[in-house]
Amino acid sequence: MKVVALAGGVGGAKLADGLYRVLPPDTLTVIGNTADDLELFGLHISPDLDTVMYTLAGLANPATGWGVVGDTFTTLGMLERYGEDAWFRLGDADFATHLRRTAGMRAGQRLTEVTASLTAPLGIRARLLPMCDERVATEIETPEGWRDFQDYFVRRRHEDRVTQVRFAGIEQARMTPETADALAAADFIIFCPSNPLVSVGPILAVPGLRDALVASPAIKIAVSPIVGGKALKGPADRMLAERGIEVSAYGVATGYVGLLDAMMIDLLDTADAPRIEGLGMAVQAAQTVMHNDEDRQQLARAALAFAATLAPRQSVV
Amino acid sequence: MKVVALAGGVGGAKLADGLYRVLPPDTLTVIGNTADDLELFGLHISPDLDTVMYTLAGLANPATGWGVVGDTFTTLGMLERYGEDAWFRLGDADFATHLRRTAGMRAGQRLTEVTASLTAPLGIRARLLPMCDERVATEIETPEGWRDFQDYFVRRRHEDRVTQVRFAGIEQARMTPETADALAAADFIIFCPSNPLVSVGPILAVPGLRDALVASPAIKIAVSPIVGGKALKGPADRMLAERGIEVSAYGVATGYVGLLDAMMIDLLDTADAPRIEGLGMAVQAAQTVMHNDEDRQQLARAALAFAATLAPRQSVV
Repeated sequence: MKVVALAGGVGGAKLADGLYRVLPPDTLTVIGNTADDLELFGLHISPDLDTVMYTLAGLANPATGWGVVGDTFTTLGMLERYGEDAWFRLGDADFATHLRRTAGMRAGQRLTEVTASLTAPLGIRARLLPMCDERVATEIETPEGWRDFQDYFVRRRHEDRVTQVRFAGIEQARMTPETADALAAADFIIFCPSNPLVSVGPILAVPGLRDALVASPAIKIAVSPIVGGKALKGPADRMLAERGIEVSAYGVATGYVGLLDAMMIDLLDTADAPRIEGLGMAVQAAQTVMHNDEDRQQLARAALAFAATLAPRQSVV
Repeated sequence: MKVVALAGGVGGAKLADGLYRVLPPDTLTVIGNTADDLELFGLHISPDLDTVMYTLAGLANPATGWGVVGDTFTTLGMLERYGEDAWFRLGDADFATHLRRTAGMRAGQRLTEVTASLTAPLGIRARLLPMCDERVATEIETPEGWRDFQDYFVRRRHEDRVTQVRFAGIEQARMTPETADALAAADFIIFCPSNPLVSVGPILAVPGLRDALVASPAIKIAVSPIVGGKALKGPADRMLAERGIEVSAYGVATGYVGLLDAMMIDLLDTADAPRIEGLGMAVQAAQTVMHNDEDRQQLARAALAFAATLAPRQSVV
């Protein structure tokens, strides 16, 4: 069995981690969002990939969901002494990741290759793939103008109103061979409960990737990131509302029409089920909020079991 | 008054620090050796410049003489988890320096400019100049072949026999305008007690620099790095012996004929005085071993006082 998960940052990483723990080794491929990558201090930083990586490696800081547990912040403190702005909280262990990634890329490695060279020594028996090897940059239009994603998200704590989102560079991006292979070989593709606009959205916007997803024989299901009309984390709820999309599991589902076989929604949102079914998707409700490791694994098991009940297509075993 | 010090690593940094403490602010220029610079993890590292910088900033680790006091080693530990070799002990605060230097150089700044952008925010009221802006690499021939300097010096703990030394890239190096100005404007030029072959040697080998030194109207004096027939630190004594140079203050002086007005030697080495005077240099003996801050300042005062007694040339005030 092969499972592909599409994931953004913290929420996506949690379900990816649940899937990783309940599946046999070397079964899971996570395709991660890289459109909120940034360059700081000359280093290439891939926050979403790293959040997934640290989480799967058991290194994630449980208090924040991102960063390395027990990390120190000496480098950043010294950079501040040098007059640098330290708004993006990079820990010292985290710097090692960015150093190695940047050195690899400068030496000509693709981001896909560099990522594998990071996950392997951490003992991760899942494949972590960036959505593409090219640089794509999510930009957020606010009433004061366009901002880089992390400027909006971290520095300004996603407090601005969002009038538009664009993925600069996406036209030049290409689905990688590794992603194409993973999608074609998948039995199940799971959209993790990540922000549909700025986490899953960029992944689906990579030229070729949406078509490959549609063409894949896999059962495709999404776990709704909206629970009881609210995003569990981050600005997804406000972003949906500002774009005129209903802030509900149903609203999320409307963005995935033609892509999904099914949606898994929270027990709070069972009232959405008939409308989602009206979009041509099967629906199942479960406890989707992941407070701890057991919640992650339970949701992963539920999603896989639900997917398995859906009529297997011809090319699925 | 303007004072220029030529310095390598730890020993040179100590006397530079003494000079810095006893002179008025903005009086001292240190010209540092950069031929033992190296690249690690994609970062440009200038060990000798940084040792001087941390020492003048009051940040140097007193136990080692190099690195930042109280530094953590989290980044290096994580790099080791990634399978990197951590033989060169870079601390986390130290990484900040290399990150900023490397980013500045990639942005097109000269090493001279980047260095100023590091010393200024640390509050250093002395000028620290690299011997040149070009990349020069000291290489050490051992019985097993040529080695990079830090490979010989740090990784192999300078235990190999040294049959030859060369400065790769030195022909393409050029004295910087800042160094030319500092030498021309100096009243006193002091060769710190650094290794004459691999610390002061590369500085003097920069095309144009030796001539500028000779042409400078400054009084030039060296403090011997050999005391009682031994180097205080590092392999200078063995390197001199292996090259057939007498391991003594006199031996050091023979390498500086035509460059120096005077040598300051240790009280243990007064027997060398007549022979050094025979080379055309004035000699004074002093306590040259610097165990603590007071020793550094006392030696600095003694060197300046000695230099001041030497007949001032026409263009010195």
